[in-house]
Amino acid sequence: MMVSIVQRLVLSVTLLFCLTSVLCNAPTDIKLDEKAKRIHRIDCLNILVYVLLLILTVCTIWLFKRRRARFLHETGLAIIYGLVVGAIIRYGGEDTEVVFVAVKPISHNNTPVDIPPDNLFYTMEVKGNPVKGDLDYLNKTYAYVFRGEVTDVESKKLDQKATFDPEIFFNIILPPIIFNAGYSLKRRHFFRNLGAIMTYAFIGTTISCFVVGIVIYAFIQLMPHLQFSFTDCLYFGAIISATDPVTVLALLSDLHVDVNLYALVFGESILNDAVAIVLSGSINSYEELYGTQSGGFEVQACFKSVGNFIYIFICSFLIGSVTGCCTALLTKFTRLNDFPLLESSLFLLMSYSTFLISEAADLSGIVAVLFCGICQAHYTYNNLSDESRIRTKQLFELLSFVAESFIFTYIGVSMFTFTKHLWDVGFIIVAFLAIAVGRAVHVYPLSFLLNLGRHNKISLNFQHMLFFSGLRGAMAFALAFRNTLSEPRQLILTTTSMIAIVTVFFCGGITTQLLTWLGIPVGVEEEHEMLQLSGAQAVYNTMDSQATPQVSTPNELRSPPPVPENRTPYEKAWLVRKWHNFDVMFMKPLLTHSQPTLMETLPGCCLPFSKLLTTEKQLSQEGIMHNDDDSDSDLEIIESNFTTFRGRGLSSQNSVTKPFCIEDANATVSDPQSPEKNTSVQGDIGIGSGLNLRTHTRIKIPGFEGEPV
Amino acid sequence: MMVSIVQRLVLSVTLLFCLTSVLCNAPTDIKLDEKAKRIHRIDCLNILVYVLLLILTVCTIWLFKRRRARFLHETGLAIIYGLVVGAIIRYGGEDTEVVFVAVKPISHNNTPVDIPPDNLFYTMEVKGNPVKGDLDYLNKTYAYVFRGEVTDVESKKLDQKATFDPEIFFNIILPPIIFNAGYSLKRRHFFRNLGAIMTYAFIGTTISCFVVGIVIYAFIQLMPHLQFSFTDCLYFGAIISATDPVTVLALLSDLHVDVNLYALVFGESILNDAVAIVLSGSINSYEELYGTQSGGFEVQACFKSVGNFIYIFICSFLIGSVTGCCTALLTKFTRLNDFPLLESSLFLLMSYSTFLISEAADLSGIVAVLFCGICQAHYTYNNLSDESRIRTKQLFELLSFVAESFIFTYIGVSMFTFTKHLWDVGFIIVAFLAIAVGRAVHVYPLSFLLNLGRHNKISLNFQHMLFFSGLRGAMAFALAFRNTLSEPRQLILTTTSMIAIVTVFFCGGITTQLLTWLGIPVGVEEEHEMLQLSGAQAVYNTMDSQATPQVSTPNELRSPPPVPENRTPYEKAWLVRKWHNFDVMFMKPLLTHSQPTLMETLPGCCLPFSKLLTTEKQLSQEGIMHNDDDSDSDLEIIESNFTTFRGRGLSSQNSVTKPFCIEDANATVSDPQSPEKNTSVQGDIGIGSGLNLRTHTRIKIPGFEGEPV
Repeated sequence: MMVSIVQRLVLSVTLLFCLTSVLCNAPTDIKLDEKAKRIHRIDCLNILVYVLLLILTVCTIWLFKRRRARFLHETGLAIIYGLVVGAIIRYGGEDTEVVFVAVKPISHNNTPVDIPPDNLFYTMEVKGNPVKGDLDYLNKTYAYVFRGEVTDVESKKLDQKATFDPEIFFNIILPPIIFNAGYSLKRRHFFRNLGAIMTYAFIGTTISCFVVGIVIYAFIQLMPHLQFSFTDCLYFGAIISATDPVTVLALLSDLHVDVNLYALVFGESILNDAVAIVLSGSINSYEELYGTQSGGFEVQACFKSVGNFIYIFICSFLIGSVTGCCTALLTKFTRLNDFPLLESSLFLLMSYSTFLISEAADLSGIVAVLFCGICQAHYTYNNLSDESRIRTKQLFELLSFVAESFIFTYIGVSMFTFTKHLWDVGFIIVAFLAIAVGRAVHVYPLSFLLNLGRHNKISLNFQHMLFFSGLRGAMAFALAFRNTLSEPRQLILTTTSMIAIVTVFFCGGITTQLLTWLGIPVGVEEEHEMLQLSGAQAVYNTMDSQATPQVSTPNELRSPPPVPENRTPYEKAWLVRKWHNFDVMFMKPLLTHSQPTLMETLPGCCLPFSKLLTTEKQLSQEGIMHNDDDSDSDLEIIESNFTTFRGRGLSSQNSVTKPFCIEDANATVSDPQSPEKNTSVQGDIGIGSGLNLRTHTRIKIPGFEGEPV
Repeated sequence: MMVSIVQRLVLSVTLLFCLTSVLCNAPTDIKLDEKAKRIHRIDCLNILVYVLLLILTVCTIWLFKRRRARFLHETGLAIIYGLVVGAIIRYGGEDTEVVFVAVKPISHNNTPVDIPPDNLFYTMEVKGNPVKGDLDYLNKTYAYVFRGEVTDVESKKLDQKATFDPEIFFNIILPPIIFNAGYSLKRRHFFRNLGAIMTYAFIGTTISCFVVGIVIYAFIQLMPHLQFSFTDCLYFGAIISATDPVTVLALLSDLHVDVNLYALVFGESILNDAVAIVLSGSINSYEELYGTQSGGFEVQACFKSVGNFIYIFICSFLIGSVTGCCTALLTKFTRLNDFPLLESSLFLLMSYSTFLISEAADLSGIVAVLFCGICQAHYTYNNLSDESRIRTKQLFELLSFVAESFIFTYIGVSMFTFTKHLWDVGFIIVAFLAIAVGRAVHVYPLSFLLNLGRHNKISLNFQHMLFFSGLRGAMAFALAFRNTLSEPRQLILTTTSMIAIVTVFFCGGITTQLLTWLGIPVGVEEEHEMLQLSGAQAVYNTMDSQATPQVSTPNELRSPPPVPENRTPYEKAWLVRKWHNFDVMFMKPLLTHSQPTLMETLPGCCLPFSKLLTTEKQLSQEGIMHNDDDSDSDLEIIESNFTTFRGRGLSSQNSVTKPFCIEDANATVSDPQSPEKNTSVQGDIGIGSGLNLRTHTRIKIPGFEGEPV
């Protein structure tokens, strides 16, 4: 929307500028001015339509939440409103006439033009007897910029009705959503299931992509009227294989489903977005470089694409992490947190610069921004002032919510207003079949393989749920919307829109029912999760059985939990453990005010260096923020880490039992005597998990303080 | 920046779309793809330049704040960085070559084209022997949109270097700044000085506009090489008469200058922005309709312009207020505040929709958004949940800060990158003289007239300060930037940029010194202001003398203040009092949860109606939020209001003494036993007054709770 509108705004306004004041001869000017104003008005109305739609959606979401209506989810709601308004705009609105002139070139400049030029320069000529006002336009040269191909040459009409440039999705709408996903990630559960998540996201998405491509290609042979090359099929597979974090997050987080299931579904969907973007980019560039009309496939080129894929992913990851760490360093070594506004601005700007740097370097901005978000949450967040913590979380939550709602509204509207839809019922049916097969081939075998190495098995019911939660949404739509010039791509867009709408409605509506059928506990409160921490083994034993959620009273929780040494490990991720050790020993002391400091963890020879990197605050604070307080640590890992740590003969008194010291000052959040304090903490904690803040306020262990939940 | 970048992005991306996948013939595709990617990279780099500049500015601002450097203000800093980078871009960067084709029309469509058309349609023709890849472009029609006039016809170059469309200022950058100004307005001081502020803003700005116009026009006669019509001079007067709220806010708020002076300066600058926008629009449309090359001036047309001015101002005001009230009603009658995220989103969307509605209706979006901000703060804010209060204030504060910094950076950069600057030292000197004369003619006579009716006189020193604080900044620049097609307008832009830069540096650097010379108290803390409340007469008596600020210790403040009945009124603004009565009796009970309810204030016959409009919360809460607690009430007015109120025999026990009950639960903010609570309130209150939160935490009277200060 925005770009088309901005473009028209630019157009209208430049026209206005060009003409209002330079020329003062009444008739032409007034006509022009009127026209420019009319276009400006239409632009504003265009945006207004979406803003009003969003207002309507917000109000209805509230009604639904209040009535606890589960049959239709808010994302579905946004789509419905979008569809209705799209239909009204399509069939109700009048066409605005666009003045155009067909032109031919006078002369080329030096370079031979074998592609459509960026600019046309047009010198006004007035036919017949020029009236006085017209003279001003003579011998003036105007610049015109490339807009796109005119497909409908007869009507010579450009599609400008409530559609907007797909790049806006990637450059303005998606970054805050993805950043917020990274920033509000429940990292403890994420890292605990990292192996499984990465397997699903990387290997699973690739499998799904190829399976979908092959299934589609097989069926395409039966539909000779469709001109689909094999790379087209693969491209469709890449686009459609990304499950949508937005929808999944909204659905499962509202239901308070089992945290591990949530982590698996959400983690996969967030990472496979990045995978899908890079994958589709690779297929595109493969097609460009080696593709032939016959759709052949060369092994060497394929390997090159894989290499390209890995290169882009790793570099983007590095850029994101490095920018995150730079922000952490900046906030650690300047006392910027005396000025929360400056601090928040810096945070915002640094995060957005990640995206820009990586796009400017031809890498994936989305991947970079995701990992930047994770880094910011893991390191920078600890250095921020209380006000900035609240502010940044609330800011990104808000931006992300509005952006999400906008995307779903837009999916609805564009079903009608976008004129290049190409309908083929056969293809859509085949596509549904293909994604089901692709999802099944990806979930079940991978889960089987994963279960071979996992202590806490992924139960069959969880696998069914994983299969089922493969909703397609905003990301698939955005990718499909990116390119709609050829017929196959138009068909892909239509199919993707349909799949997004159907999965959101169908899967969204049936999720609650399905969770009951599969016996997966819903309404699992954060307290329950807290209990798991102290008695992890017990809870994980019951995970496969159909246990009802054990919602405990706050008093129960206040009882001193058992010492962690008694627990048995539930997962041994070697890489994760190694990373965690490195993180606690070097990264955290370097990037945050946490203890132990670098002076303790680095070898003696580095002392001058490490002294330089240790702040006074870090030295002076005792027990304010120990590494082990950080709740994204795995308890098992903490244990092993501090065993190592003790082995080096360094002071770590009080550190192991610390995370369980619930009677800490910070833990008395729900103290009825301080309602205001309670509120402020509510604002502090409940952000990451959607809209329902209620469930997080009952108890707070110290570890929670160090991260945005 | 953004639009030019967005436009080029669109250009590049459409090119990319157009070509990457449709055609699979190697050489041309790769070339095109490379080119598209290059353009995309450049776009990202363009934005990145500004983002990095802002990061640098934020970091340096911190340094300056920490070192308490007063000689150079942060806005000056942003400009300096902008200038440096602008120079680097201008002289250091390489030119990116733009492929262009000069064209002539083949055929017109039905309507005769007497103005530059919106679109050109260009059908590719390949000269010579087309290579295989070229064939794909043959017989394809491409659309081109109007961009602007090419001034530098020889080099045929478009200015695309780090410049952006001025409409972005008006549609994206300015709205959050102005909204935030309204939302965080210290309404008590604002309303107390409303008469003076309105006089300065409306009459003063108009006087200044005409005086500047006449002075310039007089001098223009001595400079025959300049082609400046009288309307051009007036237009310049209108543009340059708006003092800048951004710079003034930043400077005076940091210094904690006397609150009444602050209210006068800030109030004037915020309203005269709106006045300047409407005024320059009126002059523009006057010029369009009646202007002749000789610059004649017709009385009838002039009156029509004045009528137009009033119409636009009042309608915009109404749209802003009505949207604000609608938001208040929505938040009052839905229980949306159970879901702070939805609530904040609604708030944001409603506020932005005000701007769009007003622009779509051909009115002034800036005026609408300003009054919408004031309404939101006055009514809606009271209905919001605590979380939303913090969130909305912090959000708009952040947006406003980033937008402000961006504008000043951009003023610096554009001095070099904008190629249409037209330098005329004589004109610039005359302009400086003219604005000084215009400001003097506006401040001193009006102050004299105002003092005739005011109890608390505006002292001569205050008048000097008012004269001096006529900084020109973002708004003047934005207005001048809007139209740069003719030579007079280019000269206006250059002069305005220079004036903005010089006033920011000169006035900004000298303000502290000047305040000392004039004996105006700085470092006046909010406590001092609180004292004034309880002993208003005493303080206002000393206002004309050069009293040093009486910074009191918190203990002094805790002593029970005198009963309000003892005080004498210090201002009798009849309109303000009438409005306040109406506000307390009808508007607040209708729009917020305040008491007395409509059931009490409306006549008995309206009972069913008023019952409908009264919420349960409103009835059930006792003393939670009385109208008289609202701190934007004038104490004198409260008194008179409740005299009326009592006269009607309604219950108002406890209401008069309530605002002075400092030992209220809400007042113990700085209680050392609750540091966390303290922090949360700090975040709550200190927003409006720039970055310095420290000063507001010592004491808080209950009335403060109901508004964002």
